[in-house]
Amino acid sequence: MNLDKIFLDQGSGGRSSRELIEKLFIPKFKNSYLNELNDSAVFELGGAKLALTTDSFVVDPIFFPGGDIGSLAVCGTVNDLAMRGARPCYLSAGFIIEEGFLIKDLEQILFSMEKIAREADIQIVTGDTKVVPKGAADKIFINTSGIGLVPLHIDIAGQNAKPGDAVLISGNIGDHGMTILSSREGLFLDSLLKSDVSPLNHMVQKMLKTGSEIHVLRDPTRGGLATTLNEIAFQSQVGIEVFQEAIPIHESVLAASEILGLDPLNMANEGKLVAVLPEIYAETVLAAMKETSYGSGAALIGWVKAENPGKVIMKTAIGGKRLIDMPAGEQLPRIC
Amino acid sequence: MNLDKIFLDQGSGGRSSRELIEKLFIPKFKNSYLNELNDSAVFELGGAKLALTTDSFVVDPIFFPGGDIGSLAVCGTVNDLAMRGARPCYLSAGFIIEEGFLIKDLEQILFSMEKIAREADIQIVTGDTKVVPKGAADKIFINTSGIGLVPLHIDIAGQNAKPGDAVLISGNIGDHGMTILSSREGLFLDSLLKSDVSPLNHMVQKMLKTGSEIHVLRDPTRGGLATTLNEIAFQSQVGIEVFQEAIPIHESVLAASEILGLDPLNMANEGKLVAVLPEIYAETVLAAMKETSYGSGAALIGWVKAENPGKVIMKTAIGGKRLIDMPAGEQLPRIC
Repeated sequence: MNLDKIFLDQGSGGRSSRELIEKLFIPKFKNSYLNELNDSAVFELGGAKLALTTDSFVVDPIFFPGGDIGSLAVCGTVNDLAMRGARPCYLSAGFIIEEGFLIKDLEQILFSMEKIAREADIQIVTGDTKVVPKGAADKIFINTSGIGLVPLHIDIAGQNAKPGDAVLISGNIGDHGMTILSSREGLFLDSLLKSDVSPLNHMVQKMLKTGSEIHVLRDPTRGGLATTLNEIAFQSQVGIEVFQEAIPIHESVLAASEILGLDPLNMANEGKLVAVLPEIYAETVLAAMKETSYGSGAALIGWVKAENPGKVIMKTAIGGKRLIDMPAGEQLPRIC
Repeated sequence: MNLDKIFLDQGSGGRSSRELIEKLFIPKFKNSYLNELNDSAVFELGGAKLALTTDSFVVDPIFFPGGDIGSLAVCGTVNDLAMRGARPCYLSAGFIIEEGFLIKDLEQILFSMEKIAREADIQIVTGDTKVVPKGAADKIFINTSGIGLVPLHIDIAGQNAKPGDAVLISGNIGDHGMTILSSREGLFLDSLLKSDVSPLNHMVQKMLKTGSEIHVLRDPTRGGLATTLNEIAFQSQVGIEVFQEAIPIHESVLAASEILGLDPLNMANEGKLVAVLPEIYAETVLAAMKETSYGSGAALIGWVKAENPGKVIMKTAIGGKRLIDMPAGEQLPRIC
């Protein structure tokens, strides 16, 4: 890591981000919750088991097919809570707005936030608004933090994957990343391609209601599926083997990735989850996912292994094996 | 309110901010917690009575006498929790960093955050880092959100002031605002003048430990004492009368304010609180405040009245009366 200045890479969610966090943030704020590097911190307070999470959103453009910075800001935090098995309850919203920003755009963003909040059944209960002079910020940045209630018996975390576990994905990967890229660069892609931004908490509740044991849930946002699988392999000290053919990818994402030389495995998703769970529950949970609108494309994509701890290996269609690493740097800044 | 573009005024914490929030945000996110417009939302979850709050910090300069954006970010959220009588427990931290920002500056900021967190006895348990391209943000913005535990019998809120209540302030007003102004403009002020940024939760705990009833606590940050008193008068539908001579102001803040034509009542504070409580408890609570380092300059500055609901009136040194309004616009952008 360069120890002089901050680079764009360090906000990528990939390897450089991890290095920055491990070398700078963790040693300063060391505590058992932060050290776990999960989507939310889970702790007990006043007898309640709670999850707390935060995310700042700086996406560019702020409006894109399928959503906007407002829907992203609510879904991102709702999903980070859901990934710990929490029922998301209350959200805060902090706005940093550039002077001169159009009120009608702000109204549109608030409308999206409210719509997703209603769908996710959470309340935005506290907020903050700062306005900075023109040029001191680009349009609008939104931070959301959220609090959720975790059932006492639930323990879903990145370190819980076990050899033999099945690895599921809830649908197509790369839709959000490719949508942002194509909106920004003015690429003509399939007009049906849009961001998958969506709140996943109701799907998670349905998965939990089957009574199945779930070891890990994680949403493959910045850094994509490659990063998420590597994080799980690292945190649980297990190997993960996935089958290339089993990973669902939208045709136009695949086509555009090939033309642009990008890997859909590294592309951001904002409405997908990875679930790791004992094989005996895989079929039941997959069926529960498929019954929901956001999980209709769910698939079993691989298995957790004792071999190659910390590594993710992909079996290719032609029978080869490829090591899947975390993307080293920044594929696309301001993706979320 | 201009309904076309966002103006700097609307981030001032004064009247324009209030209008923006009341006209745009509240109607969209309507719920009983947000409508109260208190420093934190207080709710029950899993049997626990909790407070949740959020604040984004965009102060310029990021380093100033007495503190930096890091100490401000932790104190701001700790204090917003304490103002509801909560014991602040856990914090989240979200960073938006401009590409090229110096690592040594980031380290200094993290150091300040950790130092204040230790003093305030809270843990930073979850975080997020985004890096934006050069020019898309000015240096660094920090959001902190916090969660605190509120004792079941405590009900401290802006709407609880009652006629006959005493109004206390914990010390000199305007130190933070004048420090930022003078650092930014290169004014030569008393070299002893520095920001009052400090965590007030331990002082609040000492005030509560006296067993006194406290109706309202609020920290007069953006918009200053004038805004805070007006908010309390409005929320409680009471009049507030304060004595000009009783309001403690540092000599150099007073002198500089006169030269610059600014009103210290409108100037931001980051380590002060206003307490409103029944007269019978005033002396006890004042004594408890004075025993703490951050409350050594505490004073009784006025009384709550039934007359003139929603209005704040100042009795001047020469026996006159002056209506204290909320500052209409922006006195100093990026004060916190």
